[in-house]
Amino acid sequence: MTEEDKASNKQRKAEREQLREELLEAQFELNRQQKGPVLLLISGNDFAGKAEVIHSFYEWLDNRYLHTRAFSLPQGIERRMPRLWRYWRTLPPSGELGFYLGSWYHQPLMQLSRGKLSNNRFQSQMQDIARFEQLLCDGGAAVLKIWLHLTDDQQDKHQPPAPALLRQTVAMREWGDFSAADYEKVRAGARLMSELTSTERAPWVRVSASDPHQRDMEIGQLVLQTIQHHLQSKAAEPVPATWRSAVDNRLQQLDYQQTLDKAEYQRQLQYWQTRLRNLMQHPRFARRSLLLVFEGSDAAGKGGTIRRITQCIDPRLLRVHGTRAPTDEERRMPYLWRFWRRIPAPGNVVVFDRSYYGRVLVERVEGFCSDADWQRAYGEINDFERQLSDSGTLVIKFWLAISEEEQLKRFQEREDSAVKRYKLTEEDWRNRKRWPAYVEAMNDMLENTSSVDVPWHLVVSEDKRHARIETLKILCRQLARALE
Amino acid sequence: MTEEDKASNKQRKAEREQLREELLEAQFELNRQQKGPVLLLISGNDFAGKAEVIHSFYEWLDNRYLHTRAFSLPQGIERRMPRLWRYWRTLPPSGELGFYLGSWYHQPLMQLSRGKLSNNRFQSQMQDIARFEQLLCDGGAAVLKIWLHLTDDQQDKHQPPAPALLRQTVAMREWGDFSAADYEKVRAGARLMSELTSTERAPWVRVSASDPHQRDMEIGQLVLQTIQHHLQSKAAEPVPATWRSAVDNRLQQLDYQQTLDKAEYQRQLQYWQTRLRNLMQHPRFARRSLLLVFEGSDAAGKGGTIRRITQCIDPRLLRVHGTRAPTDEERRMPYLWRFWRRIPAPGNVVVFDRSYYGRVLVERVEGFCSDADWQRAYGEINDFERQLSDSGTLVIKFWLAISEEEQLKRFQEREDSAVKRYKLTEEDWRNRKRWPAYVEAMNDMLENTSSVDVPWHLVVSEDKRHARIETLKILCRQLARALE
Repeated sequence: MTEEDKASNKQRKAEREQLREELLEAQFELNRQQKGPVLLLISGNDFAGKAEVIHSFYEWLDNRYLHTRAFSLPQGIERRMPRLWRYWRTLPPSGELGFYLGSWYHQPLMQLSRGKLSNNRFQSQMQDIARFEQLLCDGGAAVLKIWLHLTDDQQDKHQPPAPALLRQTVAMREWGDFSAADYEKVRAGARLMSELTSTERAPWVRVSASDPHQRDMEIGQLVLQTIQHHLQSKAAEPVPATWRSAVDNRLQQLDYQQTLDKAEYQRQLQYWQTRLRNLMQHPRFARRSLLLVFEGSDAAGKGGTIRRITQCIDPRLLRVHGTRAPTDEERRMPYLWRFWRRIPAPGNVVVFDRSYYGRVLVERVEGFCSDADWQRAYGEINDFERQLSDSGTLVIKFWLAISEEEQLKRFQEREDSAVKRYKLTEEDWRNRKRWPAYVEAMNDMLENTSSVDVPWHLVVSEDKRHARIETLKILCRQLARALE
Repeated sequence: MTEEDKASNKQRKAEREQLREELLEAQFELNRQQKGPVLLLISGNDFAGKAEVIHSFYEWLDNRYLHTRAFSLPQGIERRMPRLWRYWRTLPPSGELGFYLGSWYHQPLMQLSRGKLSNNRFQSQMQDIARFEQLLCDGGAAVLKIWLHLTDDQQDKHQPPAPALLRQTVAMREWGDFSAADYEKVRAGARLMSELTSTERAPWVRVSASDPHQRDMEIGQLVLQTIQHHLQSKAAEPVPATWRSAVDNRLQQLDYQQTLDKAEYQRQLQYWQTRLRNLMQHPRFARRSLLLVFEGSDAAGKGGTIRRITQCIDPRLLRVHGTRAPTDEERRMPYLWRFWRRIPAPGNVVVFDRSYYGRVLVERVEGFCSDADWQRAYGEINDFERQLSDSGTLVIKFWLAISEEEQLKRFQEREDSAVKRYKLTEEDWRNRKRWPAYVEAMNDMLENTSSVDVPWHLVVSEDKRHARIETLKILCRQLARALE
């Protein structure tokens, strides 16, 4: 080694050490402040050393707050769930760093370049991804996307790689050999991807991979700037309102007089429960799944209505979730994470007794979240439900409606009943005082989250028997149509 | 319907309603007090209506705090993890109810009766299960195990079942047809199972399934009594001490003089890191997994030592967990749950930077748990590590030892260093004052958790270079031996 080399080595080492100190400091601050996670996506040429970059970070940073995620083709159950599900369930929590090798971009890009995905479908998947990243950023995360490139010259120099290296290349293993023409397609796809998904808050940055030291230093600096900028950023700015305030009071337009006598109820209950049991046995249901969302005023009869349904479902395939305050693991994640982690697997049924709609109902009314949070939530929820629908989940949502007078009557009854006493809390009486605010929130919710595929079903529950039969009827009809 | 039938029907209905009120009240109290979960295992004759029993509970109780788990043969990754892993990861949390169809008993019982498991191995699995249930009860759970039986007569009457029912019978689907002789074997196995695993706190109770109403009422009453008894029970009694207090101070017997000069360190580091990289590529490692446990005094150099190892491991296969205070989801589970949820999958590496040994170290010394809790923990931890070993995980645990003087020196250095400053907290100074108590706890830990398969490796870390090389050496040698 010449004196010159030695000096250059020494300087490189000093540079790395300096960067390490700054990165460690930033990592510590991120963790201390529990700011949203910082996600680093590393894509690009197969021989550009993506894994080596991550190794450098493991050398520099506190290993306890790093998470590396590597995604290749979806496996097993992942193939039957919404495309983004496997990324949702493995998001790093607030205060920590997530490194992605083979991120949500890997599969569409490879499929496009292998001719397995049309340009149109690729573009639509890119839009889904852009919305997903926007949701993450709105929820407090910072996202940095690196594209490592080599010039053609360098590419040649790096090829043909040793067989051992080839085996380690995910794309090679999964997609077979790549010709020069294939690489050209990947590059073209990457340009399109970058155009469609490079945003101010989640930009694509091209980094040259020709010199490993320079490459790692450059990415290290980018990550450092991202964390520092993230630490200084204020809470998300209010977004332009894309939601509409409701004009009508749909609750007022309902007919609260509908009743059902006991004998007729028994007859219909038996009919519709048998129908539901048969539908649940339908061979096609094994490939579908069912998400039932129940919302409504306190004491509207959600529990009893849900029980009339769950009686018809194999308990092995059923989960009923009462939505409560988030746990501290859930608080470190974007709002919808705790619902993503509970969506039904194929052949299964999940019932949400209260749901993610809490964001635009109780959290809005009680001020548990910012205005921007609940205003944004309409779009996020629509996206969530559309992704479920697209992957074969039948989402059916019910609003059980009762009048203010009926609620009072039921509260008073609950105070006297052994079976129901425990259901009534101080909070219920408090919520009741905010009836008009809840009515407004509910009408806005109907206005902004009723799609053709996942409409709201308003069920008058003034008479519980009527409501139970009505709910079973709607459920059976929707299910029958879906299984046709 | 005769008048007599009507009267009998009416009485049955009244009985059910009465039971329902009491069960709901008990369920509510369980939830309010957040007592450990109540687990109900329902096994027995295939045509005795196990699923129907669960249905009754769904009719009676608040569906939001019930969980039904159905386990049949292990699938996919379950087959390569410790046998009890799939039960651990799906335990219901405190305050809730878990119903098991096809519990941890299903597979061994079926294997025994199909001649696929020797009597000896069956007995040893029953002992594992008994210890598992004891751990659950010690951790605050209540366990009730129901065996539903039909007389031979009734069995005949229930057979042959309709094809639809047959399809639904898990055992039938998985194990093929059953002859009368096979049923006799299942019954014999069940008797043995009951003898081996019926304990005071987790008893087997036989219930006749001949009359569905009586069956459900009897089980309902049993569950009610179990919950009520559980609610009245005090915290677990101190267990008879099965642990031994250490006689020697092993920390004092170590040689704190060992050092390594920089050049030799660089040479050896390169040698052992290359060796480790090669071992990680060994084809056999894909079927094994590695759990590294790091414990030691504050400032003993765990982080730096861990980084020298993680540099050699593909980050896609690696997780480093810094053990912190439990989250609230973790607090609602038995102590070891948060470590069970993090054990490595085949081909993966998990590093615990501090670990479940916190129970017998910091929690003992600081009084964060009861004496019974940490005294019991030695056995529970040995069991946990043995289960990991048995299923192919190589568990290697290191204690990094430094002297009291060296620690003081490092604390002072940390205060001055940019990179290390964030590592030093008030807590570290506080812990330091309890040095003798930690030494005692550490020696007791060595005495009670050093098995032949999973021994402790004491590494003197007075000189960090020495400690890093020593750790790499031990790791490489253990790994090489395991992959032979």
